[in-house]
Amino acid sequence: MSGWYRNGTSVDSIPIDDRAVQYGDGLFETIAIRAGKPRLFDLHLERLERGCVVLGIEMPDASKLENDLASAIEQSQETPAHSVAKIVVSSGVSQRGYGRKKPSPASVVIGVFPSRPVAAESYREGVNTILCTTRLAVYSATAGLKSLNRIEQVLGRSECLTGDAFEGLMLDAEERLICGTMSNVFIAVDKTIVTPSLDRCGVEGVMRSFAIQSLAAEGIEVSVRDVALDEFRDCEEVFLTNSQFGALPIRQCDGKTLVPGRLTREVTAILARNGITECAL
Amino acid sequence: MSGWYRNGTSVDSIPIDDRAVQYGDGLFETIAIRAGKPRLFDLHLERLERGCVVLGIEMPDASKLENDLASAIEQSQETPAHSVAKIVVSSGVSQRGYGRKKPSPASVVIGVFPSRPVAAESYREGVNTILCTTRLAVYSATAGLKSLNRIEQVLGRSECLTGDAFEGLMLDAEERLICGTMSNVFIAVDKTIVTPSLDRCGVEGVMRSFAIQSLAAEGIEVSVRDVALDEFRDCEEVFLTNSQFGALPIRQCDGKTLVPGRLTREVTAILARNGITECAL
Repeated sequence: MSGWYRNGTSVDSIPIDDRAVQYGDGLFETIAIRAGKPRLFDLHLERLERGCVVLGIEMPDASKLENDLASAIEQSQETPAHSVAKIVVSSGVSQRGYGRKKPSPASVVIGVFPSRPVAAESYREGVNTILCTTRLAVYSATAGLKSLNRIEQVLGRSECLTGDAFEGLMLDAEERLICGTMSNVFIAVDKTIVTPSLDRCGVEGVMRSFAIQSLAAEGIEVSVRDVALDEFRDCEEVFLTNSQFGALPIRQCDGKTLVPGRLTREVTAILARNGITECAL
Repeated sequence: MSGWYRNGTSVDSIPIDDRAVQYGDGLFETIAIRAGKPRLFDLHLERLERGCVVLGIEMPDASKLENDLASAIEQSQETPAHSVAKIVVSSGVSQRGYGRKKPSPASVVIGVFPSRPVAAESYREGVNTILCTTRLAVYSATAGLKSLNRIEQVLGRSECLTGDAFEGLMLDAEERLICGTMSNVFIAVDKTIVTPSLDRCGVEGVMRSFAIQSLAAEGIEVSVRDVALDEFRDCEEVFLTNSQFGALPIRQCDGKTLVPGRLTREVTAILARNGITECAL
């Protein structure tokens, strides 16, 4: 059955005293399951480990995590071709109050759910986006991490639900382009691929890392740096990355209309050759 | 029994799909219970309502909240003289993904727990504090609110557990003094009482608001403005406020030793006269 598992056993609740509930004191990973297997699992583990170091949570044992995930996938009986797993790692139940001894033992729950592929048309023609009015706070202690503190993304994503926007792009409080509410963003400037630095805020997506790596392996360097709003407004191409959909061109944002260009095509082709099959046009 | 209640019924867990667990998508209030009654309940409701507006959660009905809290206090059978209630309001269970229609109906759980009074000596002589190395991100969309996104406070408070610090003071990423991990801070500068502005980050404590109001009623104006670290280092007196302990002088912080001074004495006396009985020396 689709749902949540803890140590291989189906669960549908969590103790109220778990610090995930009380303080969002934890991390998560959202992993694409394709043909019954987790995709880019090593990159997810890497990011999870970075988060555990910053939050002072013991990194769960990788092979137990892999086994528990495999067991959850098997028990969930989802269509193996296309589903999504979510691993939630918290600092567990502890005394009341913000403080805890570090590192805290990790408490892990794993959910497996059906997911719908994005329409092929969106890969060919691009998706509509908006520029969110919600701004990301800067100089966050958890910049780049996928922590359970996600109110900014909740507010940004909720802005997308009123229209037909596939995604909302978010600026930081100092008007730099940072990322989408559930994706990372890449732009083409002077025939170079640029993606915003995530040192101050934002989430370092696994597909973003995989795209940067895959492009580097083909001799294409991605420039990771600050992107001012004006530069975004003037850029030639824009695409989004996300662990579930791979890469998608942007067709529309903030009054600007774009046509998926040569660099975006090159990136999606490279991702497709590297196992992100949705990106094969 | 000490513990959690939902709609008057004892509970010890919450659905994993609750957005409090997944995203910290909610708010909380920590209320002092004295002689079986919630203290400063109206100020807690006011802050909760401000948070509900920003997060797009329907404000729970105030009289139902009051009744449910009274029922939880009664069922908890705590020593009525000194306990603490925590009201957690989340946007509830919803579809997976960050987005939700706003306003979302509120999901409410209420916990009641025993609490220990701070020693009389601390009120007289002050408490030891540290300056946390964890910095608060600036220009937060939830600045001032008591949201469930509290990783910064978790990290800051955890720094206090290694020594004998009663509290950790937190700076923002631009080196301004903001607040304690679980308290607000006031300083005396040139015989004026100053408390940091919380427009960019930090939590607007209920006791902070009550102190400002109570002082204003006696003709003493508190200046709410930015406080640079250097100004803090040079100041004459420092005290903390919190809904549980009222106000406490700081004796030590960051190598600086202080003696509770005239303004701090004046503030605690005013709070004591206004029902914050712990502050009566």
